[in-house]
Amino acid sequence: MKLMNFILAPDSFKGTMSSDEVCDAMERAIKKNIPDAKVSRVPLADGGEGLVNALLRICGGRRVTAEVSGPLRDKMNADYAILPDGTAVIEMAACAGLPLVEDRKDPLHTTTYGVGELILHACAEGCKNILLGLGGSATNDCGIGMAAALGYKFYDSAGSELEPSAENMVKVSLIKTPDTRPDVSFVAACDVDNPLYGPTGATYTFGMQKGAAGETLELLDAGLKNMAAVIKRDLGADVALTPGSGAAGGLGAGVLAFLGGTLKPGIELVLDAARFNDLLADADIVFTGEGRIDWQSAHGKAPVGVAMRAKAKGVPCIALCGSVGDGAEAVYEKGITAFFSAVRGAGDFEQIKKTCKEDMYLLAESVVRTLMLSVS
Amino acid sequence: MKLMNFILAPDSFKGTMSSDEVCDAMERAIKKNIPDAKVSRVPLADGGEGLVNALLRICGGRRVTAEVSGPLRDKMNADYAILPDGTAVIEMAACAGLPLVEDRKDPLHTTTYGVGELILHACAEGCKNILLGLGGSATNDCGIGMAAALGYKFYDSAGSELEPSAENMVKVSLIKTPDTRPDVSFVAACDVDNPLYGPTGATYTFGMQKGAAGETLELLDAGLKNMAAVIKRDLGADVALTPGSGAAGGLGAGVLAFLGGTLKPGIELVLDAARFNDLLADADIVFTGEGRIDWQSAHGKAPVGVAMRAKAKGVPCIALCGSVGDGAEAVYEKGITAFFSAVRGAGDFEQIKKTCKEDMYLLAESVVRTLMLSVS
Repeated sequence: MKLMNFILAPDSFKGTMSSDEVCDAMERAIKKNIPDAKVSRVPLADGGEGLVNALLRICGGRRVTAEVSGPLRDKMNADYAILPDGTAVIEMAACAGLPLVEDRKDPLHTTTYGVGELILHACAEGCKNILLGLGGSATNDCGIGMAAALGYKFYDSAGSELEPSAENMVKVSLIKTPDTRPDVSFVAACDVDNPLYGPTGATYTFGMQKGAAGETLELLDAGLKNMAAVIKRDLGADVALTPGSGAAGGLGAGVLAFLGGTLKPGIELVLDAARFNDLLADADIVFTGEGRIDWQSAHGKAPVGVAMRAKAKGVPCIALCGSVGDGAEAVYEKGITAFFSAVRGAGDFEQIKKTCKEDMYLLAESVVRTLMLSVS
Repeated sequence: MKLMNFILAPDSFKGTMSSDEVCDAMERAIKKNIPDAKVSRVPLADGGEGLVNALLRICGGRRVTAEVSGPLRDKMNADYAILPDGTAVIEMAACAGLPLVEDRKDPLHTTTYGVGELILHACAEGCKNILLGLGGSATNDCGIGMAAALGYKFYDSAGSELEPSAENMVKVSLIKTPDTRPDVSFVAACDVDNPLYGPTGATYTFGMQKGAAGETLELLDAGLKNMAAVIKRDLGADVALTPGSGAAGGLGAGVLAFLGGTLKPGIELVLDAARFNDLLADADIVFTGEGRIDWQSAHGKAPVGVAMRAKAKGVPCIALCGSVGDGAEAVYEKGITAFFSAVRGAGDFEQIKKTCKEDMYLLAESVVRTLMLSVS
């Protein structure tokens, strides 16, 4: 094999290293042993950070601030990003996130209206592609607020226009599409597969943490069920059972129905934004990694997302991890050739934290030197 | 590179796995991924075992028991080994070892006479090559006892024959070689580099643990110094400063002077006995390993002994270890391409002991799979 073009695409190592720090250690080991190596860095995510920060870090771009409605309708400044290629990256949590309501949780009235305003702002900036992050919502409104901001109108059975609130979802019997819709393509990052309503739907899975209980849960779930029916009839979108439609209080369904968008696992969206497939076309090997690789890793976490793309292009992928947990062998069939722990011996987590960067460097060096055997 | 012929040559992992168990885990990982692989096992040593057990395990052969003199002249049964090729393996500690004297330490009189008797026994068995293990002596007699058993005679300045004891070394002024000596080649395993006498010689370095103190130390050191002078004059061997001549109470010098033998690091002797260079001629890769690889590993321990031979033959060598300590990079230049720790995450030594075999299997599998990239 050739061994010149490397892609470094690790997740963050929870509690020890950011994905940038992991890349630093890997790159240092590569460059020491192969000074001419070309190294492409795709530091996937850093624990807890949102889509905006992740993509700004990976792709570069600029942060834009807009005054929009907060989750309780009070005006606030919310940030989003515009990447170098003109793609906008909007997190719903920026103006409809749970931390924004603090002790004023009110799932019957918290709204995604501001999300729609951010979309309009990005459109006014000329963005033709918008990526949406769905995590961390304070809302359970099926995106009705967002839709209203974009010009959708909602009517009850008497023909009266309704306030676009979660409370009113159950009364909606007609949805009118605005005459003009932005000529923009939407993709939302979605890492849950809940349907819109029912026992595993948005309300019963996530509603309690947003302040819903008892009859409120019933009302909200009935509202989402009603929205699905009216959306199907009036907008032609069958969103009820689509995995992820229950994400972010039903905003997943809203993306599908009101924006004509698609839902993707966050890692896929990030890899697309990073033009990962283009990088793979020239790559000889991919290094990925995460704090702990184990049986769960085979089910959609970042390293396996990376590995599956690498496998599809015939590029080997090796995982350099913090620790290796039980059942990690499950990742082999996902395209991870080999996995290693950077831990160098017995010791508790506090000790490991102190040496983790050097440990990763040493591990990466031995992996690189092993790979170099094939080209010597 | 080709990847079909493997040599597994790990040391034991102190406190967790025998070298055979390490080989088991490595071989299982190799065979799972390359079912047709040819695997040659050279499990180097298992913590604390002597040369006889190590070579019987590696080479096969038979154990022979002989009645000989113990360190205090009482008769005892001592074992040695005859390998399939007729080479005898004798440990001096089998009949002159410190554990045999228990609380009767007496460095002025403890003798290597039995070692000479074992040599004669092996000669009577037809052995033409004899390997000697020098560790763990109760003696400080420069091998004078061994020499006497083989027919050497020692005289004082008055021309009287001396009892061949450590106490009498200082009085020796003439050594007479026996008329016939066995037509045998001798190699002794020696892992210390002390000279025969002086501050870093046999007596002052190892004499205290054999029961010497005060004037006894002085007498013994003077005796060794005198032996060196008489040996040089009468036998033509300049052994005083040869590294290792101070091993086993000066038996190192005795091997050189009375047997015409050579001293080798134990690992070299073992690798020779295992015909390691012959194995290397067909090998694609060597796996070695030890409990902990670190900066000290570069100075003559087993894995580096293995690696240096592999390097000389152009065969890559990878170390799969228990832990990786500071400064392990020093082994790169000795021929170790890469080193890995089998430890999979934070945890104390007791936890690691429980999973070490499976950990080694997993590590070996990932290393094999990484190497397989080069042949795919």
